Amino acid sequence: MAGAIDFYFDFSSPYGYIASTRIDAIGARHGREVAWRPFLLGAAFKITGQKPLTELPMRGGYALHDFARSARAAGVAFVMPTPFPFFALGATRAFYWIAERDRRQAKRFAKAVYDAAFARAQDVTGSEAVLALAEAMGVDRDGLAEALDSPEVKARLKTEVDEALAKGVFGSPFVIVDGEPFWGNDRLDDVENWLATGGW
Amino acid sequence: MAGAIDFYFDFSSPYGYIASTRIDAIGARHGREVAWRPFLLGAAFKITGQKPLTELPMRGGYALHDFARSARAAGVAFVMPTPFPFFALGATRAFYWIAERDRRQAKRFAKAVYDAAFARAQDVTGSEAVLALAEAMGVDRDGLAEALDSPEVKARLKTEVDEALAKGVFGSPFVIVDGEPFWGNDRLDDVENWLATGGW
Repeated sequence: MAGAIDFYFDFSSPYGYIASTRIDAIGARHGREVAWRPFLLGAAFKITGQKPLTELPMRGGYALHDFARSARAAGVAFVMPTPFPFFALGATRAFYWIAERDRRQAKRFAKAVYDAAFARAQDVTGSEAVLALAEAMGVDRDGLAEALDSPEVKARLKTEVDEALAKGVFGSPFVIVDGEPFWGNDRLDDVENWLATGGW
Repeated sequence: MAGAIDFYFDFSSPYGYIASTRIDAIGARHGREVAWRPFLLGAAFKITGQKPLTELPMRGGYALHDFARSARAAGVAFVMPTPFPFFALGATRAFYWIAERDRRQAKRFAKAVYDAAFARAQDVTGSEAVLALAEAMGVDRDGLAEALDSPEVKARLKTEVDEALAKGVFGSPFVIVDGEPFWGNDRLDDVENWLATGGW
């Protein structure tokens, strides 16, 4: 089987959310696993100097319009969270702790986090929210609660973020197929074409 | 006939160049005229705080890779101009002076400027280059030479740029269809879908 598709995203990213509803089907159509890799977009912004789209004059209004339009195009629910952007540190740490035990469960957890944030406008930044979402997936709540602030879990996330940056990941979503990088939900058709044709 | 498609671009924009090779065919397939509207992206950057992509850490390398990849996808020649970005003030002024006399000739001139800059890596910033490209289209060279620094032509361009900014145009290419804004060469498929369906 060909290598996995790397799917990088930040839990606070509207375009990451929309792409998350499409990426597994794209992988499945081409016999590829999809490795979900949440990271912290703020770490990339420190390097690129980029700010959250919604904070930029002119671009902010377009972004709000386009988030909703892109969600309609994908046929998924969308509500704009407030506050935005938010810092999903706990959910991101939790993902990797869960993934070490059960990768499929971690993916279900990630989908639940995105659904809570962008389909139901729920706050997903607090520990209680993260633990409740994880518990509903069948995760060991007490074990996760203990892990969220452990040095091992902090170190694991730092490694993941550093590796993402080292691979040139500067936005969300960001997809890498056989070394080829694609930035943005609006490039998923390109990802699919690349998979189908082997590139151009 | 339905209203024209507004096609905003900066002559220094690689994605604008690529889109320029596709936009007229999209308009033709849906019975729409395309109004080409070169503007000065730097005026928008002053408002948004954006810098040229190629000057940004991480994003710059991706942009250079993606310019060439996007050109291959569109099936058009592409070479990266140096220096980049360049300031195409003369060509942009010339476009509107020509357009007041012959809109089709102005569009041919714009295509010639883009072709020179991005298919043949020619400098298009100097007056001599602008005049030579215009003359090859059958434009009155002496008339244009006199016009390039005239108050009327400067005022015309300022009006065009101000109107673009007032419509929310902050990037290149930027397409407006029946009031609906689309930013980026990678949104031309969306433009086509919007034209075909009336929106979503």
